[in-house]
Amino acid sequence: MSECLFCGIVAGEIPSRQVYSDDDAIAFLDIAPLHRGHSVIVPRDHVLDGTASPADWAKVAPGIVAVSQAAKAKLGASGVNILSNAGAVSGQSVFHFHVHVIPRYDDNPGMEGLLKADRTAGDLDEVQRIMTA
Amino acid sequence: MSECLFCGIVAGEIPSRQVYSDDDAIAFLDIAPLHRGHSVIVPRDHVLDGTASPADWAKVAPGIVAVSQAAKAKLGASGVNILSNAGAVSGQSVFHFHVHVIPRYDDNPGMEGLLKADRTAGDLDEVQRIMTA
Repeated sequence: MSECLFCGIVAGEIPSRQVYSDDDAIAFLDIAPLHRGHSVIVPRDHVLDGTASPADWAKVAPGIVAVSQAAKAKLGASGVNILSNAGAVSGQSVFHFHVHVIPRYDDNPGMEGLLKADRTAGDLDEVQRIMTA
Repeated sequence: MSECLFCGIVAGEIPSRQVYSDDDAIAFLDIAPLHRGHSVIVPRDHVLDGTASPADWAKVAPGIVAVSQAAKAKLGASGVNILSNAGAVSGQSVFHFHVHVIPRYDDNPGMEGLLKADRTAGDLDEVQRIMTA
């Protein structure tokens, strides 16, 4: 087993609800969504956030764009926040570079709504089905 | 004059406190910093967030990495949040693709501290001098 949770997900050792994948990165639903469709994009290779390079950003960029578009087209989001926490002080808890795509809806707008978890974020299996349909 | 605030900053029509620049992007201090050293990276070309592509992310990636490193090496940040708001609902207020790099410090850790503006964020001219020294 991988010691890193996200390496375990990439390897398929740990289940996840994938919503996007390509040769360099995968995206899956966050198990504690702030808002409906909250996804995490991770490079397949293990990258500590402290050493993420422009090339690492290039690896996750197609997933960021694709998941953002799916959130808008399929879940009806009006926008997204794209957030990467680097370092424990910033709120990072898994130390493998990752970028959150957090869909945002008209009923809870603004930066101040970003961190207010939406208790109607929905059934994760259903959200996955909609986003990948 | 450019109609877009960030195009005006890129063109030098509107003053800003630059902390990084390259052929594709510039970074400058946010005039309403959430935390000391809060910077914004923008591509030189006007890009609406809703149409940002993987290539647009690649343009800002070197600036994201450089500003993050400067915040840690020169301001003593322990980490950073990297945040892009896309769409008014997400808190976006200037409609030219941009990425915030928000340095984080040990005295105000965690995701919950991200949006709590730090009133000791400091004199912006001094912060610019330190980050570009």
